[in-house]
Amino acid sequence: MPDAEAAIGIFDSGVGGLTVFRAIKRRLPAESLIYLGDTARVPYGSKSGAAVTRYALACAEVLLKQDVKLLVVACNTASAHALDALRDELDVPVLGVIEPGARVAVERTRVETVGVIGTVSTIRSAAYQDALTALAPTLRVHAKACPLFVPLAEEGWTEGCIPEAIAHAYLDELKESGVDALVLGCTHYPLLKPVIGNVMGPEVELIDSAETTASVVEATLEGIGFSAPSGNIPSFRYKVTDSPEAFAEVGARFLGHPIDDVEWVDF
Amino acid sequence: MPDAEAAIGIFDSGVGGLTVFRAIKRRLPAESLIYLGDTARVPYGSKSGAAVTRYALACAEVLLKQDVKLLVVACNTASAHALDALRDELDVPVLGVIEPGARVAVERTRVETVGVIGTVSTIRSAAYQDALTALAPTLRVHAKACPLFVPLAEEGWTEGCIPEAIAHAYLDELKESGVDALVLGCTHYPLLKPVIGNVMGPEVELIDSAETTASVVEATLEGIGFSAPSGNIPSFRYKVTDSPEAFAEVGARFLGHPIDDVEWVDF
Repeated sequence: MPDAEAAIGIFDSGVGGLTVFRAIKRRLPAESLIYLGDTARVPYGSKSGAAVTRYALACAEVLLKQDVKLLVVACNTASAHALDALRDELDVPVLGVIEPGARVAVERTRVETVGVIGTVSTIRSAAYQDALTALAPTLRVHAKACPLFVPLAEEGWTEGCIPEAIAHAYLDELKESGVDALVLGCTHYPLLKPVIGNVMGPEVELIDSAETTASVVEATLEGIGFSAPSGNIPSFRYKVTDSPEAFAEVGARFLGHPIDDVEWVDF
Repeated sequence: MPDAEAAIGIFDSGVGGLTVFRAIKRRLPAESLIYLGDTARVPYGSKSGAAVTRYALACAEVLLKQDVKLLVVACNTASAHALDALRDELDVPVLGVIEPGARVAVERTRVETVGVIGTVSTIRSAAYQDALTALAPTLRVHAKACPLFVPLAEEGWTEGCIPEAIAHAYLDELKESGVDALVLGCTHYPLLKPVIGNVMGPEVELIDSAETTASVVEATLEGIGFSAPSGNIPSFRYKVTDSPEAFAEVGARFLGHPIDDVEWVDF
């Protein structure tokens, strides 16, 4: 069994979940973290729920072998499809990114009208829509899949006329529907925040679930008495299922510092 | 050992290779065909050569269990990385899409200046550049990765201002370089032919390797005396590693007719 000094395990289909990793690291500086990016199978967003669940269980197995004390599913698509299966299979607490993001959206909307954007697989799963209406049954929810946002963010085209035209194509209708809070339901989307914000306008709050997920991690560890002792010297490790070099290069842009010692694992 | 009535095996990372499937079916109507789309791991174009080779060998194994007499790698990225490994491992002839496309480009250019576009992985492998200069050592080759073209084609955004702006961003420099033949080095790109043609202009020939690959398949089968007898009643089968329904839906657009009996396989 892991102890309070054990690491928190975090996985995503690729680099996007590093936004969650960074938020947890900032909020909980004494915690050791192990990140797994399933870069050999990225993206999850266009895959079926069955495939995503299979991959998520395999990711969890890799991390549990490292004796993690808590598992964070830092991927909206995997949170949408695999959270129940992971909780059934695993003995450690499992947290996703959807419920924390939905909770903030419900708190922030003043007009009871919330938008959600994400991958095809996340939106089709209706996981956000279900989480939002479970919290606020009378809420109006407008959801839209934006499949080109991930390749845009990975290409680094985050400003200029191309991302603006694409953002208008996806979001104009959502803007018209009168939402005043928009959940960025994919860990890549914060990189496109300026362009999404331009289209939606200043009166619409953009909700990035990385910060809220970090606060749920903190509350959960405190609740079970498993927070790392404050003097703990944390370690940070990174594993990927495809090229470590490619991950280190793109990941450094997400974290704002170089990444050393990325290890390749296979499953 | 397979006989002359055995099927031709064709694989790709997803639906794109159906353009090659269709060209072979049209040219060789007596041949049975089995198509495998590795939709659980699509796309290959952003993955490392090592990962793509591992997947290609697994795809080949699935098809060889069906006793195919010849294997067509209907994916530029897999052709770029895995052709040698497949030929080392397998007892049946293995044909890729790169050499046929390169051959046509060399035949067609009048100014000895050829362009190649493809995924990041295909262009980085330099497989087209190598194949072209092996055929014509003095040829000038200009290569460009266009990572947004695949998601654009899959989103169905094949005309209008967004694909035009993206095509200009990728291709203007290529146009300036004076190429008069452009190899569409990814099986998805033919869907964007009109917009690519608009940017490149009428004096640049666009080379789609599906047809030329089909003619190499024909020549190879004739060469080894393994063509199906002309009265043969062919069968057509489809296998995928993720959702059969999603493949049947998108695949019907590629083939122009409904697809029945898509079978799920795992590896």
